[in-house]
Formats: sequence, structure tokens, C-alpha cells
Amino acid sequence: MRTYVLDPGSPTPLYEQLYRCIKEDLLAGVIAGGEKLPSKRALAENLNVSRITVESAYQQLLTEGYLRSRPRSGYYAEVLETLPQPSAPRCPAAAPVSEAPPPSAGQFPFSVWARLMRGVLLDCRERLLAPMPGQGLPELRAAIAGMLRRSRGMAVDPEAIVIGAGAEYLYNVLLQLLGRDKVFALENPGHRKLRQVYAAGGAQVRPVEMDESGVTVPGLIASGAGVLHISPGHQFPTGAVMPIARRRQLMAWLGSSRGRYLIEDDYDSEFRFTGKVIPTMYSMDATGRVIYLNTFSKTITPALRISYLILPPELLDRYREKLGFYSCTVPSFEQLTLARFLDEGYFEKHVSRMKRHYRLLRQRFRAELEQRQFGQRVEVLEDEAGLHMLLRLKTVLPDADLTARFQASGIPAAALAQYYFPDTAPKTPGAVVLQYADLPETEIPAVLDLLAEIVKGEE
Amino acid sequence: MRTYVLDPGSPTPLYEQLYRCIKEDLLAGVIAGGEKLPSKRALAENLNVSRITVESAYQQLLTEGYLRSRPRSGYYAEVLETLPQPSAPRCPAAAPVSEAPPPSAGQFPFSVWARLMRGVLLDCRERLLAPMPGQGLPELRAAIAGMLRRSRGMAVDPEAIVIGAGAEYLYNVLLQLLGRDKVFALENPGHRKLRQVYAAGGAQVRPVEMDESGVTVPGLIASGAGVLHISPGHQFPTGAVMPIARRRQLMAWLGSSRGRYLIEDDYDSEFRFTGKVIPTMYSMDATGRVIYLNTFSKTITPALRISYLILPPELLDRYREKLGFYSCTVPSFEQLTLARFLDEGYFEKHVSRMKRHYRLLRQRFRAELEQRQFGQRVEVLEDEAGLHMLLRLKTVLPDADLTARFQASGIPAAALAQYYFPDTAPKTPGAVVLQYADLPETEIPAVLDLLAEIVKGEE
Repeated sequence: MRTYVLDPGSPTPLYEQLYRCIKEDLLAGVIAGGEKLPSKRALAENLNVSRITVESAYQQLLTEGYLRSRPRSGYYAEVLETLPQPSAPRCPAAAPVSEAPPPSAGQFPFSVWARLMRGVLLDCRERLLAPMPGQGLPELRAAIAGMLRRSRGMAVDPEAIVIGAGAEYLYNVLLQLLGRDKVFALENPGHRKLRQVYAAGGAQVRPVEMDESGVTVPGLIASGAGVLHISPGHQFPTGAVMPIARRRQLMAWLGSSRGRYLIEDDYDSEFRFTGKVIPTMYSMDATGRVIYLNTFSKTITPALRISYLILPPELLDRYREKLGFYSCTVPSFEQLTLARFLDEGYFEKHVSRMKRHYRLLRQRFRAELEQRQFGQRVEVLEDEAGLHMLLRLKTVLPDADLTARFQASGIPAAALAQYYFPDTAPKTPGAVVLQYADLPETEIPAVLDLLAEIVKGEE
Repeated sequence: MRTYVLDPGSPTPLYEQLYRCIKEDLLAGVIAGGEKLPSKRALAENLNVSRITVESAYQQLLTEGYLRSRPRSGYYAEVLETLPQPSAPRCPAAAPVSEAPPPSAGQFPFSVWARLMRGVLLDCRERLLAPMPGQGLPELRAAIAGMLRRSRGMAVDPEAIVIGAGAEYLYNVLLQLLGRDKVFALENPGHRKLRQVYAAGGAQVRPVEMDESGVTVPGLIASGAGVLHISPGHQFPTGAVMPIARRRQLMAWLGSSRGRYLIEDDYDSEFRFTGKVIPTMYSMDATGRVIYLNTFSKTITPALRISYLILPPELLDRYREKLGFYSCTVPSFEQLTLARFLDEGYFEKHVSRMKRHYRLLRQRFRAELEQRQFGQRVEVLEDEAGLHMLLRLKTVLPDADLTARFQASGIPAAALAQYYFPDTAPKTPGAVVLQYADLPETEIPAVLDLLAEIVKGEE
């Protein structure tokens, strides 16, 4: 039975607190349309309140049309108008752009966050001490659904969201959900951590060959994969956006055999700078086997671990049956703060401010690069790739030595070769992934000096 | 290289900030005695400060005797006096007892916690935005080591502590660390979640037979286990404390074959009410294969997921090598707040206040039980078991029906049989685990009414 934390010491009467809680659940879809509510007696016992309290709350909800009563059966949630499903793929609305100059570009709005935290401390004492639902607090799940609706045009049921302490944690959850007997196929090159996590979790991990559109279907079939984990919105480290044709091919692969799953990892996709926005694969999915994953660790701060999954219905049932015993790993305090941060529009503002900040950083770096007149010796392969830049250096140095040179100088860069699976041949020797977002601006000359040293003597 | 977050805007000079950070690491053992420090040049580059800043910080540490300089080699940490190893097992010091009556017994000191949170928000802005070490923040690890030293007489190296978002998360970490090819042996009866987590993680899980001292060595050998997971300080749900003789037998089992490990799960042990305090198995371990695990979720609030492992040296190395890529799953905000809560003595005060609160609750329940004159029909098997009580009801009802009766009435109780592995025979039919700590006091009569109904007609 759902439970609510009511505060007898509050000036708001108990029945009204309960009414608000249930209404919130109905609006957020936590209680689904048509669902039977607990009997007045059972709910009163469960909440340790009088039956009259529950009766008054239910009556108010009846009056306002949220509930329907069936004689000798009980109370049922009305089917509320759901978000319209897009008939054609919709493009996300642009994030609101704040007109004022960013107070401190490239910085997290810490004072806003701190203010929200203080507000949560004042308002939510009981919530902060109460046990949490395993999938995360309904407030945060509703806020995430709202943000995805506004910024990505996604229609998401908050009940299908699972909150977890970071993407790495959720990769492990997915492994347990989908089964470690499955072969997990990954983009090659790609995030090293992804392979590390899946391998540590005991899965078979295989690289899939890629062309300029992303993983290829023949490569995918050759891998024998049951689960494909990709970032179609923003591949790392190439920064490529998977075109719609390849997405459709992968959807066909997904639908052509039972037990196949696709994990759409949208990690970092907020920081794409240009280009057409393509709907998520989750939104185009008709097979019910696409899982959407994203994280706030990268967009807000790495000291905050909040990530989420959106599970399709069959997998949601399986999650609840097989893994429903897991407690939520994110403190309720951070969940409530983030919910307010999202609901009040700060997140979208912050992302848009960060995008401008990174764009400036990138422009500055490119300008300084041009001043050095490297010509063909330092080529920018991709600079729409988010928080890093892909360069190609003309050098006889092997890739491993390149990485070592950057590391020795404390520069956050490595050869692209480092992002390939150990036994696969990197396609672009001399390619370097520079994490420019982690670079203090004062360090840019040092980076350029090192580049100059590396390509010295080349034509 | 270790990195520190320095604040150029602070009134404290940069060199002094750096000096304090390094000193803290030296005192906390994060930098070990004899360890070489990074060169001034490398550290200056890494921190993006001038070399003079680093030089001044090092000079101050030299003067105070924290560092030693070797010509043409660099700076080394002095070996600081370590905590004396107890020659005989030591008993923990008693937790300080606050003399004032508890302001609100059984309640978490939320206002203290909120004040500490506000303090962290004010003081630690940079820390809250900086990436975290994978094992958790040094402040919290040092604070945990300090608390364990004061309250448990344990000498723990903060570097050996791994912080994670809840015990369930850490069970998965242990599974990955020790290998899921191992057989995991668990107490039977025991926590259901433990089996669920290990099974979901892909391990073979086997029950071990128990007598009144805990798991038996013949049972353990029969299980074929490589890893034994037990709660010797406070078995759940029997509440038994494992006597020293059995502990020694288990240590002998552990030492007699390579690749065996023992997980000492100290979950809930803070709430033991009486009886001699026995040193942890971690403290008596000479094999280097005992892992200590504990959590704050139960003692503080379930809405806060902070648990920790203490790894013996060989496993710590293996952790860093195999799993060092994992990010810490607990937000730095909660880590810093908890560190202060521990350092300022609030945790021990809170635990001691909670113990008194639970003891009162228990006494009240027992008194009401006696008033009902159940005689032999309701027997208290164990009421030193922490947050629950073990009762035995004289009834013809099968255990499954007993559990169903409690559940239907919303009473947090279940037959002891529910805590056994599915295919094993529970030894004590009619035994019931009552989670009295979760019971609103106003509900006690309802519980007694139900007990009366169940044993009605029995002699």
C-alpha cells in the first residue's frame, strides 16, 4: 500500500495534507488512471489516522473529479488526460535562454542550489527521515518527466523511472535486470568505464564496429549481442549523432528477435552545440525494448550522483519482480532538492549557460590554435563533441607515447586509441581526445606548446 | 596524483590552505608514513598554483616535522605514531551518555543535522562541486575511523575504508571483489535481502546451519562456502552474539585454506542493549581476510544511504586494481555532514539516546504483555535483539498464516519461518519477529489484541 507522511503538528489539517499527497500522485501518474485506491479503513490504519481523515480527503478528490466511487467496490482513480503522443516525431522545444549575462560563466549556480537545499531542510523534515520508495521519490520522478517533456519532447510515465546513485550503479542494475548471460555490445571507441563496469559485473562485453553513422548492423550481428548499449544522441568520443536511417536499422534489428534490448545512454547529450535535434530512440520505440538512461552528475556536479533509467512496461514489471527489493541509493535530500531545481527551471537555464560557456572556451582554444599556424599538422576533427575536442596530430609518435606525453604534463588529453577495446585496431592514429572543459584557461598556452613540440619537424 | 581544491578567493593564503590539506591527509593516514610526496613542480602544475605556494606549504610541514626532505630525492611523509594495537582484546569505551532528558525520544536530532548541513553549505562550496575520490572523502573516512576507535576500540586505517550508497550496494561491490564464482554462505535464518542481493548479483548462495552460538563449522564446511557472511556481533533475527569460542573456530576455518573470506556485517549492532561487548572479528583477524561492513542507514535515517567497508590490505590492493574505476556513490554533501556529525560526537549521543528510547518501548510492550496474562501462550524468546523482538506463540496456525494475519492488520511482524531459506525447515514453529521499533505506540493494544486472538483457545 502507498504510504504518505503526514505531519500532525502542521497548521494544514491532516485530511488536506492527505488530499494533496494523493492528488499529487494522481497528477504525476504515480496512481494510474483506473487504479483502485485502498479502502478507507486500510489506509487509515496504514497511516495511523482516523477514518474520518481519509473519508474527507477522498470526498474532496471525488468532488474535484480525481476519483470515482463504485458502490460496494471502492474508489478508483479517474483516467486523467495523458500527454498527447506525437503523431510525427517532435523536436524538443529550445531551452529557455536567460537574457542576463551569466553571473559566473561555466559555474554551477551554487547559491540557487544552496537556497533550494535550505528550503528543503525547512519544508521537508518528515520526508527526509521517512523511508524512500525503491525507485526514488515521486517528486523527483515527476520533475524529471516534466523536464524531459519540455526539453526533449518526450512523454514519460514517472512510474517508469528508476533513480540511482550514478550511471555506473545503473549499469549494474541493467546487468542484473537483463541477465549477465547476455552479450553486451558496446561502441568502439567508447567510454572505457562502460566496459569496466559490465566486465566487473560478470557480463560478456564485445566491441561493435562503427562507421560514420555509428555502430553498423553487420558488426552488431557479428558480435552476437543480445544487448546493445549506445549513445545515439551524442557518441563518445567521436561526438557523432546517429542519423535516423541507422536508428531505424537498429530498431529493425531489435524487433527481429525476442530477448534483444537497446540501452540508449544519453549521457552528456545536453552539451551538443549545434545540429538538428533528433528524437530519442526511446520515443520512436514500438518494441518496448528500448531503455533510456541519463545522469545529472555531468550536468550538475560530479559530487552529486543522480542518474535515472526509464524502463519500458515489460521491463518495469520485471524490475519490480526481480529487483524491487533494492533500496533507492540516492538520499532523499538530494532528490527533493533536484526536483525543485528542475521544477523551477534552473536546470535548463544552467545547461544553456554552460553551453554558452563551453562554446566560448572552444572558440578561444580554436583561435589560439589558428594563431600558432599549425596548418595540417594539427587538425580539428570534431569540435561539436561536447566537453571534449577531437584533434589529429601529425606525428611519428605512437599513440601510447602521445597519451604518456599528455599525462606527464598534467593535460587532460589522451590518444583516441585509448578508447578502443584492447584487442581492436584504432582507425585514426594521431587522433587525440582533449577534455578542454577540464582545462583551466590559463593552461591553454601550455597545451599549445606541447602540441607544437609533438608536431615539431613534421610537414 | 592527489589533488586538493584551493580557493583563491579565501582570506586564508593559498599556501596555508594547501598546508592544512596535506597535514590533514598526513594525520588521517591518507598519506602514509614514508610515502613520497609529489615534486613541487608537479603539484604546482596539477593544482594550477605557483611553485612558491607549494614550496611554502612544504616548508611549513618540514618545520613542524610532518615531512622529511631527502637531498636530490624529494619530500617524504614522516612516520607518525600509529594507534597502539591492543595486546589483549580491548572493550570499547562506553558511549557518552547525555544527562539531559532526550528532547524527543526516539527521534533523530534533525535540527543538529540541519545545522551541520547549513554549515557545510557555507564552508565547503568548492568541495561540493569537486570530483570525489572513489573510496569516499578523506574527512568522512577519518571520522569513521575515529568513531570506531572511540566506540569500538578498533584501530582502523582510514585509507582502508570504502564508502558506498547503502549496504546493498556494498554487497554487490564485495561480490565483484571476491568473485561470483565463490559460494557465499549465509546465516539461516537471516536477512532475506542478503540472499536476494547476492543471488541477483549472480553468486551461489547457500544457507549454513546454526546452533545457539551461530553458524556451525561442520555446517559451514558442508556448504562448500568460500565466503562466509555473518553478523557475529548481533545476529538477525535471533539477536544472538557469537561467543569467542565459535569466533575462534571460524577464524581457524578461515585460515586453513587460501581464498576463504569472512564478511563481518555489523549492521544494527549499535542497538544491542545488554551483555558483554566482544571485540570485532576484524580486530582479531590475523589472516587478512576479514572484511568489516556497517551502515548508517539504520542508525541515522533510511533516507540517507551511507555504508562502509573496511578492507584488509590485500583486498584493498585488489579493490583498487579491479574496481578502482568506480565513482563514489554517496554525494559529498552527505559525506561532509556525516563527518561533522561523527567528529562532534553527535552520532554516539544519538545512538545512546535511541537505545534508551527503544529500551523504554520494549519495557512498555513487555509490561502490557504481562497484563494480558498470556502465560505460556505468548513467550518472549529474545528481547535483546535490537529493533525487533522474538516471540513464540502457542497456536495451531501454520507460520505462513501467522505472517498473513500480521500483514493483513498492518502490524510489522512476520513468522520467523519467513527468514529461513526457502527449502530449509525452520526450527521454531510459532516464532514471530515483531519489529516493535516501527510500531506507533498507539498501536500496541491492537498488536496485543491480535496476539490474543491468535492464541485463543490454546492452553
